[in-house]
Amino acid sequence: MAGTDATTLPSDREARRHRWEDLTTWPLMLAALVFLVAYAWPILDPTLPTAVDRLAAVVMRGTWLVFLTDYVVRLRLAHDRPAFVRHHPLDLLSVAVPVLRPLQLLRVVTVLDRAIGRRLGSRVAMYAVAVTTAAVGLGALAILDAERDAPGATITSFGDALWWAWATVTTVGYGDRYPVTTAGRGVAAVLMLCGIALLGLVTASLASFLVDRYQDEDEEEDQARDDARFAALHDELRELRAEIRALRRPESL
Amino acid sequence: MAGTDATTLPSDREARRHRWEDLTTWPLMLAALVFLVAYAWPILDPTLPTAVDRLAAVVMRGTWLVFLTDYVVRLRLAHDRPAFVRHHPLDLLSVAVPVLRPLQLLRVVTVLDRAIGRRLGSRVAMYAVAVTTAAVGLGALAILDAERDAPGATITSFGDALWWAWATVTTVGYGDRYPVTTAGRGVAAVLMLCGIALLGLVTASLASFLVDRYQDEDEEEDQARDDARFAALHDELRELRAEIRALRRPESL
Amino acid sequence: MAGTDATTLPSDREARRHRWEDLTTWPLMLAALVFLVAYAWPILDPTLPTAVDRLAAVVMRGTWLVFLTDYVVRLRLAHDRPAFVRHHPLDLLSVAVPVLRPLQLLRVVTVLDRAIGRRLGSRVAMYAVAVTTAAVGLGALAILDAERDAPGATITSFGDALWWAWATVTTVGYGDRYPVTTAGRGVAAVLMLCGIALLGLVTASLASFLVDRYQDEDEEEDQARDDARFAALHDELRELRAEIRALRRPESL
Amino acid sequence: MAGTDATTLPSDREARRHRWEDLTTWPLMLAALVFLVAYAWPILDPTLPTAVDRLAAVVMRGTWLVFLTDYVVRLRLAHDRPAFVRHHPLDLLSVAVPVLRPLQLLRVVTVLDRAIGRRLGSRVAMYAVAVTTAAVGLGALAILDAERDAPGATITSFGDALWWAWATVTTVGYGDRYPVTTAGRGVAAVLMLCGIALLGLVTASLASFLVDRYQDEDEEEDQARDDARFAALHDELRELRAEIRALRRPESL
Repeated sequence: MAGTDATTLPSDREARRHRWEDLTTWPLMLAALVFLVAYAWPILDPTLPTAVDRLAAVVMRGTWLVFLTDYVVRLRLAHDRPAFVRHHPLDLLSVAVPVLRPLQLLRVVTVLDRAIGRRLGSRVAMYAVAVTTAAVGLGALAILDAERDAPGATITSFGDALWWAWATVTTVGYGDRYPVTTAGRGVAAVLMLCGIALLGLVTASLASFLVDRYQDEDEEEDQARDDARFAALHDELRELRAEIRALRRPESL
Repeated sequence: MAGTDATTLPSDREARRHRWEDLTTWPLMLAALVFLVAYAWPILDPTLPTAVDRLAAVVMRGTWLVFLTDYVVRLRLAHDRPAFVRHHPLDLLSVAVPVLRPLQLLRVVTVLDRAIGRRLGSRVAMYAVAVTTAAVGLGALAILDAERDAPGATITSFGDALWWAWATVTTVGYGDRYPVTTAGRGVAAVLMLCGIALLGLVTASLASFLVDRYQDEDEEEDQARDDARFAALHDELRELRAEIRALRRPESL
Repeated sequence: MAGTDATTLPSDREARRHRWEDLTTWPLMLAALVFLVAYAWPILDPTLPTAVDRLAAVVMRGTWLVFLTDYVVRLRLAHDRPAFVRHHPLDLLSVAVPVLRPLQLLRVVTVLDRAIGRRLGSRVAMYAVAVTTAAVGLGALAILDAERDAPGATITSFGDALWWAWATVTTVGYGDRYPVTTAGRGVAAVLMLCGIALLGLVTASLASFLVDRYQDEDEEEDQARDDARFAALHDELRELRAEIRALRRPESL
Repeated sequence: MAGTDATTLPSDREARRHRWEDLTTWPLMLAALVFLVAYAWPILDPTLPTAVDRLAAVVMRGTWLVFLTDYVVRLRLAHDRPAFVRHHPLDLLSVAVPVLRPLQLLRVVTVLDRAIGRRLGSRVAMYAVAVTTAAVGLGALAILDAERDAPGATITSFGDALWWAWATVTTVGYGDRYPVTTAGRGVAAVLMLCGIALLGLVTASLASFLVDRYQDEDEEEDQARDDARFAALHDELRELRAEIRALRRPESL
């Protein structure tokens, strides 16, 4: 447990990784926010001068470098590197695949995660709300970016985009607005998948809550029955002991 | 536990709050009904003379004052005020946010709640029916109010509005009618959320019912197995006792 | 238990009701089939001569009388009449409300029910398939009847109607076909409700199956642990008995 | 149990069937792939010369013969033939019904099944992904085949077909693209059913996972309580034994 060369001790490396993650939480949150502004602004205001547009692209590359550095450092400090890669797939995707960079915003969820603690029910609810909000918001931005200037497009303002995203994620799908470009359809396909996951999470949470309640009622009955059974055994043992004592008493009488 | 100044005793204040709630149940139901009429009438009949329209607005303000007063009284009588605010979020929203005033109608659910009693299954079913009915009815009124005079609107009669609301809450979403105003889309977004909740509740109730049934079958097997195990223990103890008695009998022989 | 006036004995009346239900099963199935033909034919072939149309109406009235008679007889033979009414709501609705007469076809489900036996899983699956098939088939007939001649109608053939009904019951709702009449929208509203119930049943059945499987695994572990615990108790009791025997043996030695 | 003619021994026949299935796994996978290419190519490229088209048809007939042979051999080697037919319905359908031949591709799932092992959770997830992918891919090919040249068709490219298939299987159903032919509507009906099954599987998996988690927590409490109960019994038995020993000790004192 106490080694001579601290830098090579796995548990020590893991501890350093956790210290690194604690230290970088808020800077990375800030980087995610800067990324969001640089990503959203040129989409929301297409009349921006080219210079600002280019600045936004540079800023986005900068935040990407920040997240890439963070990933590399954490990977190097990880005790079991292949396991680290497997357990943090979204982190890898968001730094490796350019179109998935908005996933860096999920870092916000990680922070909320720590704040909310370990209760399963509330964590599931929080993930559902966070992922849905992120999916609708980012989906609206991405679809607007893809569709706005396409011929025959029906989604041409952020209001349209938000409305379409919400109708899609709830699987209502009126069809008054729909993507016509390949990129837009890709965004839509991901949103539909989020919608199915959302429906599933809402239903599953409710179902597990109800099942848990029913079982608690059954459980109480079971406990009462078991209590009675064990009490019967104890009674019998007590009588046995009385009989054994009776064996001794004649001598003392 | 025994105090001198009864008015400051928490348990006494709580008791007074419950008496207040018992007393105001039916008056508040009536106020909710009056509110519904004053809210729905001008929407359903847009040819009403301006005077009646204004009267309806005054009546709605009056019912709002009634609900505001009720909320303030209950809050003052509450033992733990922050807890009261946290546990009655809909009551607060319905008096604080003007567009959410129709939520005052949910007071009807509270009354049904008491009538139906505590069985979890039937309470969930009742909430599903009540919330869906309220969502569809109020959603239809609100969407008609928002859309009727909008250019390019497809929802222009109460029949259209009800039809659209039902197609939305079931997540079918044909798209033959859809909102075009921002207010209408807001109403639609809430209805879609209700739809997901409805689907979730229906599924979760069925699932928990089925799981409960399966478990009752398993349960019976388990009980039979446990009965056999405890019976075996009792048999063994009975034999033990017989052997102990046999220790005494030689003397009597 | 053995009475003098057999006709007034409740258990005897119930037995006669069950004999009646056994005897009338196949005649009522036939009546339901005749009803289906008389209901569907004029809808599927609108070029029928008026005489045939009228004949179909007469036949439908005849089958209704058959079902009405059956309901009255069963009600009279029932031991607890209010309970009979409460437990057979669809039977009452199908004879009392003219537009719900197609529900008489659900009699087919009752017969299947007996054939399939009591296993919960397969009964739920069978109900889901039967109700969905009935809802889609009857919904298509009803919507075609309501829409065919309406101005602006998009559902004008049985193929369209079936296609629309299936897209509705699965909550997909393309919106390429949709009802425009009030009667048609009523049919659609019921179909959407069936769709939600179908989704709920499919999901709930799968969920309860999976939960049951997981629990069987847990169950086996629990049983093994309990077996070990009871075996430990039996061991201890056996040793106790050995010690008691050792008390006797010194005398015999 | 021990026979003279080994070829007629049921267990020996079953062993030979399993050896046959092991041997043919990869050749059948290859045949399925060849089938997929011969099926998809003429649909994806309608400008193919007639000769290639005919070649594709011949190749498809060839792969069908391969699968038919495999089915017949396995059926003959099966110990209980009616049970074999009942337990492999998709194998039978894919060789017996021409339009269902693409189901032969599900053979790929069988292979994955062996690779992934027996854990229920991951098997359900894998089935969901495999069936959805197969349904969307094959559905897109089939709908394109059915719709491309139909008058008034809205699905005329593979991109459209994939987009439509995904919007259908997630039950979003915008209605910007929809089938107009009877064959196309048949494909759509099957896809919608897959969509409901997908929603059900996702939800059910999540629900069973959550229920399992909740129960594990309850389980730990139960185990602790049971441990305490059994420990109390053991204590009492130990005391009993001490008393019995005390019966003997007086002699030794």
